[in-house]
Amino acid sequence: MIKAGIIGSTGYAGAELVRILLRHPEAEIVWYGSRSYVGKEYAEIYGSYFKIVDSVCLDDNLDELANEADVIFTATPQGFCASKMTEELLRKTKVIDLSADYRIKDPKRYEEWYGIHHETPEFLQEAVYGLPELNREKIRTARLIANPGCFPTCSILTVLPAVKRGLIDQDTLIIDAKSGTTGAGRGAKVQNLYCEVNETVKAYGVTVHRHTPEIEDQIACISGHPSVVQFTPHLIPMNRGIFATVYASLKPGVTEEDFRKAYEEEYKDETFVRVLGDGRIPETRWVKGSNYADVGFKIDQRTGRAVMMGAIDNIVKGAAGQAVQNMNLLFGLPEDSGLRMVPESV
Amino acid sequence: MIKAGIIGSTGYAGAELVRILLRHPEAEIVWYGSRSYVGKEYAEIYGSYFKIVDSVCLDDNLDELANEADVIFTATPQGFCASKMTEELLRKTKVIDLSADYRIKDPKRYEEWYGIHHETPEFLQEAVYGLPELNREKIRTARLIANPGCFPTCSILTVLPAVKRGLIDQDTLIIDAKSGTTGAGRGAKVQNLYCEVNETVKAYGVTVHRHTPEIEDQIACISGHPSVVQFTPHLIPMNRGIFATVYASLKPGVTEEDFRKAYEEEYKDETFVRVLGDGRIPETRWVKGSNYADVGFKIDQRTGRAVMMGAIDNIVKGAAGQAVQNMNLLFGLPEDSGLRMVPESV
Amino acid sequence: MIKAGIIGSTGYAGAELVRILLRHPEAEIVWYGSRSYVGKEYAEIYGSYFKIVDSVCLDDNLDELANEADVIFTATPQGFCASKMTEELLRKTKVIDLSADYRIKDPKRYEEWYGIHHETPEFLQEAVYGLPELNREKIRTARLIANPGCFPTCSILTVLPAVKRGLIDQDTLIIDAKSGTTGAGRGAKVQNLYCEVNETVKAYGVTVHRHTPEIEDQIACISGHPSVVQFTPHLIPMNRGIFATVYASLKPGVTEEDFRKAYEEEYKDETFVRVLGDGRIPETRWVKGSNYADVGFKIDQRTGRAVMMGAIDNIVKGAAGQAVQNMNLLFGLPEDSGLRMVPESV
Amino acid sequence: MIKAGIIGSTGYAGAELVRILLRHPEAEIVWYGSRSYVGKEYAEIYGSYFKIVDSVCLDDNLDELANEADVIFTATPQGFCASKMTEELLRKTKVIDLSADYRIKDPKRYEEWYGIHHETPEFLQEAVYGLPELNREKIRTARLIANPGCFPTCSILTVLPAVKRGLIDQDTLIIDAKSGTTGAGRGAKVQNLYCEVNETVKAYGVTVHRHTPEIEDQIACISGHPSVVQFTPHLIPMNRGIFATVYASLKPGVTEEDFRKAYEEEYKDETFVRVLGDGRIPETRWVKGSNYADVGFKIDQRTGRAVMMGAIDNIVKGAAGQAVQNMNLLFGLPEDSGLRMVPESV
Repeated sequence: MIKAGIIGSTGYAGAELVRILLRHPEAEIVWYGSRSYVGKEYAEIYGSYFKIVDSVCLDDNLDELANEADVIFTATPQGFCASKMTEELLRKTKVIDLSADYRIKDPKRYEEWYGIHHETPEFLQEAVYGLPELNREKIRTARLIANPGCFPTCSILTVLPAVKRGLIDQDTLIIDAKSGTTGAGRGAKVQNLYCEVNETVKAYGVTVHRHTPEIEDQIACISGHPSVVQFTPHLIPMNRGIFATVYASLKPGVTEEDFRKAYEEEYKDETFVRVLGDGRIPETRWVKGSNYADVGFKIDQRTGRAVMMGAIDNIVKGAAGQAVQNMNLLFGLPEDSGLRMVPESV
Repeated sequence: MIKAGIIGSTGYAGAELVRILLRHPEAEIVWYGSRSYVGKEYAEIYGSYFKIVDSVCLDDNLDELANEADVIFTATPQGFCASKMTEELLRKTKVIDLSADYRIKDPKRYEEWYGIHHETPEFLQEAVYGLPELNREKIRTARLIANPGCFPTCSILTVLPAVKRGLIDQDTLIIDAKSGTTGAGRGAKVQNLYCEVNETVKAYGVTVHRHTPEIEDQIACISGHPSVVQFTPHLIPMNRGIFATVYASLKPGVTEEDFRKAYEEEYKDETFVRVLGDGRIPETRWVKGSNYADVGFKIDQRTGRAVMMGAIDNIVKGAAGQAVQNMNLLFGLPEDSGLRMVPESV
Repeated sequence: MIKAGIIGSTGYAGAELVRILLRHPEAEIVWYGSRSYVGKEYAEIYGSYFKIVDSVCLDDNLDELANEADVIFTATPQGFCASKMTEELLRKTKVIDLSADYRIKDPKRYEEWYGIHHETPEFLQEAVYGLPELNREKIRTARLIANPGCFPTCSILTVLPAVKRGLIDQDTLIIDAKSGTTGAGRGAKVQNLYCEVNETVKAYGVTVHRHTPEIEDQIACISGHPSVVQFTPHLIPMNRGIFATVYASLKPGVTEEDFRKAYEEEYKDETFVRVLGDGRIPETRWVKGSNYADVGFKIDQRTGRAVMMGAIDNIVKGAAGQAVQNMNLLFGLPEDSGLRMVPESV
Repeated sequence: MIKAGIIGSTGYAGAELVRILLRHPEAEIVWYGSRSYVGKEYAEIYGSYFKIVDSVCLDDNLDELANEADVIFTATPQGFCASKMTEELLRKTKVIDLSADYRIKDPKRYEEWYGIHHETPEFLQEAVYGLPELNREKIRTARLIANPGCFPTCSILTVLPAVKRGLIDQDTLIIDAKSGTTGAGRGAKVQNLYCEVNETVKAYGVTVHRHTPEIEDQIACISGHPSVVQFTPHLIPMNRGIFATVYASLKPGVTEEDFRKAYEEEYKDETFVRVLGDGRIPETRWVKGSNYADVGFKIDQRTGRAVMMGAIDNIVKGAAGQAVQNMNLLFGLPEDSGLRMVPESV
């Protein structure tokens, strides 16, 4: 059994890691870290785990944890993981970081968009961007995984085949994303109160959202040439789910059949990416609670554009599920081990 | 592998049966029945099952199905199952009926409350009321299971220990229940449109709801003497969940400790009933997506009453999950086989 | 024009006071008090008031405000208003207190249920409980109004005719209430975050909720004899609305016609109480955004009980609307002045 | 008093017309038309109007109605109004059509996008597109108003100043819109049931939505040259509101100040368009229940694009409110007569 420790286990991504790992056939949780709730029973914070988890929340002691765990998940605020990273830690244990600390290779770029000084840039080159559909082989042998952001996961999987095969003009990419409110975290803020989110929609982080450079970097990796991307997230009154609507101009002569072929071929061996059939549009409910990413597209010859659409559960494929997928790869397990959750029908 | 057929597989309870059986280690679905969608791919109705289920909806042919299936689940409108029941059918296969047809032993009482003539009352005595916490042994050897209603399941489990041990005056029982909207079914009715249910609460079926006699009959079974029960359901803007608040006058001298002892002892071997600790109140979210029933109580010496509270997921423990629990018992499997879903944390 | 000052104008009840007073033909707001947002533009906190309100939030200076305002609304936490009350203040201005400070005449009872020492009990006898349907004449000449709580308003109006005419056994009263989340206030608490309230229902304050003694006191006022009441509130995933389901045993021989007569007669001159016709059940959406209280009932001869039901908008008739209704009475205006809002159809 | 008749008064837009006209100082409703509910009390369909409206629903008899009403609002399915239009009707009464029948001047284009044959194209040239911010003077003297669609209203008002002043490359316009579920109408369809819309987001009508040609035509009117527009609507789990996020490439040298100036100047005399200050993003809740359109923008020099955003209440400014605004213009009343609703704070 893989021994797993979770730092930040009482946030929404952390709690979803718990839900998934509890039913994982090859892993067990040895450490429920939560700075805010040290000493409190985990099942008191999330009543769902009553009579399932009888552990108590522990402090964020990475050094001690490294001796006990085969893998540490850090579901922590930006900057935390980078501030604690050491060579010794990585010698003892694998680290899957759900924060953004190791996602952007250029520390200056990280500091510009995040406004945080990166304390351990020496690990940036080693860290592997943990999108299995992109970096499966590198992940298998990594010590430190930069688990992708929720918006980048959804956005990249939505456009990957089109970008890789050059079907679109990459410089025209516009990503309009809609996210459920778990994406805003579990911090006690007025703006995230029920009555402030319910019955309303708004954009946020317009032109400056931190996931922008992450998306741009990966698009550049896929195609081999850099470009700027327009990214606008919106907050939606629902708990889970991200829907990305992506617009791009078609390269001359590109047809619906080219898209169909690209998507079917690129994803034909992927367990967790479902390419929808003609005319089918993703919906976030069809992936809720599961690790699937559903992708589809419509070609608009009238406007000369592709409209590509993707849907994920932001705290599963966009966070905890993907982290476990990475864990499976790191430890040589079947990639879908513990991840065969069927999405809810309603 | 148990071969299971589902009649009414595109309703909400039917679709949840699919979700559960798809991950059941000892069962497989051989028949996706749905009168409304005959010939249509099941995954077109519920996109969640895309690339998971590749079957097509079939008609409601119980006779043909009986030859193929070891067990048939009827998640159908009231009257359907009773109209099709035959001795031959029960010789060939087990039937778990999720409708109310065999829940009430007295056909006149059934006809009074449901306004439907019962076509096969000869099977009423044989049918076992499928609440495992009450009738576990009888279920094991049954051919025909009357799967309990969602409100009765929640209500009965909430009061069972108090009623059984005579801690309350049974004639004072008042059940005020709050249900998510899956309980209203998937029929295309104006009153169940999003905008008609969202941002509002109402009572319905006040004094005349059909689950009343079912609750009364089981309360009478538990205590050995009949009584009338006040039952009022309310419709709540959420998908899943039932919360029952039950009021009853305390018998003289009864204390909080008597309640604590009764609940802990009655449920100590039950996998799916969780008795909450002192001061903890159930919430429907803590059982969402799982087969748990969470129960708790507060003793109010000031008013001389007990306030007993229970929460279930109406389409799991209140329908599909309980049906699978019954199937497990019918086939000698571990009672929690395929039912170890961890409730969602959010 | 009546000059009105609002202390606590950025809470949900305060903001609703603003919405109503802005369109009141005889009143204007001269003071937007908000300790948390002093110096900030009011329209920055509630974007709805952009280009409608150009005032800035001021501190909670009651003395200064008393010189400027004809009436002060205190939409503040328990204890605040009582701590500031002086004879001088009441000589200069009228006070309508939306907190509980002057609702319970017995300061010991207040301190027991609220856990707060009452600093100015000398004003308790003078304060008038501001439920116009009960105390209209006293309100007209008062200086200090104790604006009723949201649950008591809904509960009392739901049972008033039955209690007043002795149709029910008052000692059997059980009130099961369901409230929207504005009732939980605008404080930044984890338990009120969108994802903690959405898709779930729970009871709270079971057997100990602070509105219990207020309801009991008013029931005693109406009938002339005291009794204990069972009161249980529940939190519902919606913004606005309270639905109260009230159970009580019928006095011998009481019929549906007795109830019909009692309700029609008691409320025949009330602008804001709508007695629903036979078989109609209230819904919170039918009163949303308005000052109406809708009440209805079903007589259950089978159980010997009445089920009385009421619905209000908790921040209108349950708070701000009722406060303006009281202001209208205090200043000799038509009672519905500024309060003729038509409830939203959807 | 203006006598107003409403055809289709029980749909969501029709019901909102009722809510607004009931409080309009210069209008009264003389005809509650509703083919589906003929003979039924209007207040039985919408309980909000109990004791406010005591009328009964009438059939859709335009000829008879024309004799009684000064203005007829047709809140009816596409094709209805065009099928009934006659010269005689327009001689007797004004018509404000909330359907799309007279919005698109070219009947072939209408038939292409709507798949409906236009029965009275002879009135297309006379009909005035009823967006007051665009066509105020023409509206005043019209007989037949084509009340704009909800998405076009929001989209056009969001981009009008930028398009009119040529600040953007009009051929790059992409409109990504998010709509509440009242936009889907009140028809009894499975896809609009509470449980099918709640907790999910999806796009619909991708590349083929019928509001596309309407938006394109008006953009062409404003700028004087035609272009194709990419338009994608999404369905959001909330009742009311549309949020439009509009992307376009900046013309060379265009700055944030150019935008600021354009928006402030264009809208400086508009009562119902609120241009948000620097850094402020619209939210649909800030306009809920009101006739306001809130617009804002962010200039992204990094990508060379403008991100323009607008929010309206889809059944007020996007339907019924705008229709009343048009009525006010038609009858020489102040444009905001009956329309000074303050948006809800929560």
